[in-house]
Amino acid sequence: MPPIISIVGKSNVGKTTFLVKLLPELKKRGYRVATVKHDVHGFEMDRPGKDSWRHAQAGSDVVVVSSPEKLAMIRPTDHDWTLPEIGHLIGDSVDIIITEGFKREEAPKIEIHRKEVSSELLCTARELVALVTDEQLGIAAPQFGLDDAAGVAGVLEKRFLAGARTESEVTLVTDGKPIALAPFVRDAIVGTLVGLLSTLKGMGSLRTIDLRIKREG
Amino acid sequence: MPPIISIVGKSNVGKTTFLVKLLPELKKRGYRVATVKHDVHGFEMDRPGKDSWRHAQAGSDVVVVSSPEKLAMIRPTDHDWTLPEIGHLIGDSVDIIITEGFKREEAPKIEIHRKEVSSELLCTARELVALVTDEQLGIAAPQFGLDDAAGVAGVLEKRFLAGARTESEVTLVTDGKPIALAPFVRDAIVGTLVGLLSTLKGMGSLRTIDLRIKREG
Repeated sequence: MPPIISIVGKSNVGKTTFLVKLLPELKKRGYRVATVKHDVHGFEMDRPGKDSWRHAQAGSDVVVVSSPEKLAMIRPTDHDWTLPEIGHLIGDSVDIIITEGFKREEAPKIEIHRKEVSSELLCTARELVALVTDEQLGIAAPQFGLDDAAGVAGVLEKRFLAGARTESEVTLVTDGKPIALAPFVRDAIVGTLVGLLSTLKGMGSLRTIDLRIKREG
Repeated sequence: MPPIISIVGKSNVGKTTFLVKLLPELKKRGYRVATVKHDVHGFEMDRPGKDSWRHAQAGSDVVVVSSPEKLAMIRPTDHDWTLPEIGHLIGDSVDIIITEGFKREEAPKIEIHRKEVSSELLCTARELVALVTDEQLGIAAPQFGLDDAAGVAGVLEKRFLAGARTESEVTLVTDGKPIALAPFVRDAIVGTLVGLLSTLKGMGSLRTIDLRIKREG
C-alpha cells in the first residue's frame, strides 16, 4: 500500500488550497498521487436524471460509470472508512496518498495553521511531517510558509518516496480487514506463490500479483 | 468475481428504463447488485468548485471522497476498461453485476427490443439470456414483455444466482491482467495459502483472502 499522509487543520484554514499547490509539485517530480477528501456531511457526486443516478435510486449497491477517459465508482457504505481500507481500495496504482481531513487517524500529518484562525495546533510535533504556517512556532517540526508547497514536497519525497523499495511488498486482507505480516510469513507467501505461478506459461517476470480467494461451504 | 450480464439494445430503446425495473426485483430477492454504465462520450460526475473537483484539476491521479454513507472514487484512464477489469475492481462485494452497454464484449446478454426502434436484433439467440421485446420474434431465446422485470429476474436467478457455490473461487490478476487458472493450480494455491495463514492467530474460519504482491529489484 502506498504511504498515506493527512493534511489537517481547522475549518477554513486552507487545507484544499494547500493541497492543490502541493499536487503539481509532486506530479512534476514524477510521482502518481491519489487524493482523498473526508466529507463528514455526505456529498452528492451524481446528478438527478442521469442514468447512473437512476441506477443508484433504483437500489444499485455499487454504481460504476466507465468511459475511455475516466472511471467512477460510487458505493453506499454503513461506516466511515478507515485510511487502511481506503488505501487498500486505491491500491498500488499510485506512489502516495494525500488525504484532506482524517485528523483522528494515525497517518503522518501536515498541519495547516493560520494565526487568525486559531491560536493552537491540532497536532503534536511528534505527529507532524511538516507544519505549514503563517507564523513561526516554537515546536520541533519542519515549518514552511503557506505558499511553500515545493518545500513540503521535498520533505515528502525524502521521507516517503525517495529510494527504490528493496523487497517485495505484500498486502494481505482477510474478511475485509488488513492483516500485518511478520517478515518470515511474508517471505513464505511470496516464495510459494511466485514458485507456483512461475510454472505457468508466460509468468517469468511478474511485477504485481493480485489474488482473491473466496471460500465456500 | 460475480457473474456479469449486459443489457444491450439500440440507442433510446429503453435500456436504463428496463434496468431500473430489474434492480428492485433482484434486490427484493435478497441479492446485492452492482450496475455499470458504459459512457463512450465521457461524463462529468463532479462539480466545478467542489474540493474533489479541485483535486482532479490540480492533477490527482485518483480522487476519493469518503463519507459515512457513501464512498466515491474517480480515476482517469488511458483505455476503455474491459468487463473483467471492471469486475475485478468491483470484487465480491456484490452477487451480480449488470451492465448497460458493452455490446461487443463476451458477457451473456439481455437485449431490449422495440419494433418502432429497429427491425432487427443486435444479438444472436446463442448470446441471449433473455430478449425483452414488444413483439414476439421467432428466435430460440426466452422472451419477455417490456414490463416483465420479474420474469427476467427469475431467469437471472435460475441461471446465475441460485444454489450456493460448492468450491472456493479464486481470482488472479498479474500485472493488471486477469489470469484463468486450471483447477489443479487453483487448488494448489488455495491449499498452500490457507495452510500458511491458518498457522496465524485468529485465522480459523476465513471467508475471503485478498493478497497483493508487488515485486521489486
